[in-house]
Amino acid sequence: MSATTGRGPYAKSAEVRRRILEACVDAFGETGFHGATMKDIAKRAGISHTGLLHHFARKEDLLIAVLELCDERSADFLKSADAIDPAEHPVEALRGMLTVVVGSELQPGIMELHCVLSGEATSPEHPAHTYFAQRYRSVRRFYTEAYTALAARGELRSEADPEALAATTLALINGLQVQWLFDRESVKVESVIRDFLVSVAPGLAR
Amino acid sequence: MSATTGRGPYAKSAEVRRRILEACVDAFGETGFHGATMKDIAKRAGISHTGLLHHFARKEDLLIAVLELCDERSADFLKSADAIDPAEHPVEALRGMLTVVVGSELQPGIMELHCVLSGEATSPEHPAHTYFAQRYRSVRRFYTEAYTALAARGELRSEADPEALAATTLALINGLQVQWLFDRESVKVESVIRDFLVSVAPGLAR
Repeated sequence: MSATTGRGPYAKSAEVRRRILEACVDAFGETGFHGATMKDIAKRAGISHTGLLHHFARKEDLLIAVLELCDERSADFLKSADAIDPAEHPVEALRGMLTVVVGSELQPGIMELHCVLSGEATSPEHPAHTYFAQRYRSVRRFYTEAYTALAARGELRSEADPEALAATTLALINGLQVQWLFDRESVKVESVIRDFLVSVAPGLAR
Repeated sequence: MSATTGRGPYAKSAEVRRRILEACVDAFGETGFHGATMKDIAKRAGISHTGLLHHFARKEDLLIAVLELCDERSADFLKSADAIDPAEHPVEALRGMLTVVVGSELQPGIMELHCVLSGEATSPEHPAHTYFAQRYRSVRRFYTEAYTALAARGELRSEADPEALAATTLALINGLQVQWLFDRESVKVESVIRDFLVSVAPGLAR
């Protein structure tokens, strides 16, 4: 590993930044944005309070950076939407979404962070309120397009309209993840979502 | 109104207690249990910090009192379960649940509190973790009994088993409430839940 790619001051700084964000995932995931303090985050990251302020001046900046990290890690829906057009390939798009959801089960820290932040961000004053409002809207649009395309092909088995089914799908995923965090033994996130998807879009079973 | 029922020292104390709990619904609903401070709660309730500590010595005591208040206000599922036995009267039990959910839409404060607290309580160290874990388990049991009874009568239209449908129903309700708090214009909580219930239990439409 050369000095410029792995050991230079830039790499060191990136490594500290990474440690800070990991600390934030833990801190926000445990006590939420409001409950976490810059002092606590610095301690978890193993750096000084001043060192933390050098990288992130405000807790809001940390929040934004952490949400961006989550989007990258969870192979964000919006990217899947870019990769697979739900209006063109609805079955593949729904299948891709299921893979993302199942993958997130392997990252309980990220899932906990999402549950805590989306819960407290329901308050309109929360700094992540707009982020979640837009994200949920995009995800619903993605599913609506997929279900609309399936309906046009006569492959949708439901009396509900595509918008309602889209809200149902997103609610199911978020709600099951919360239940799973409270009871990891009994709640089967993947199979319950798969059963629901197959029931409305039988093409997914094939 | 007589002095003993309306104006005595007991009634005054009960009135202060009520104001404190209202303040807590707001404070916990906005910034969560971790973010709210005793000082802030006292200020919202219009009493002194010392006055608050006289009624509730610790923030954990306030949390328990607020959760009890919510259970009373939302005509808690468990009480519905007592009133209507889901194994005996599954359709009526599901219909009763729908009424509770629709009713809670009229109380956004309570709904916000529930979303924020259930989110942060996913952390096993949170003082309300056991409360939500038990509550969700009871609610799933209630639905499981209703769906099992419907299946036995040949009135369940789903290939999923009653346990999976129970988890689906709870996830749908919780998830839609979160979406509604972010987008009150477009998310139709009641009709989406009703559509789902009617699709699996057509007897509800009658």
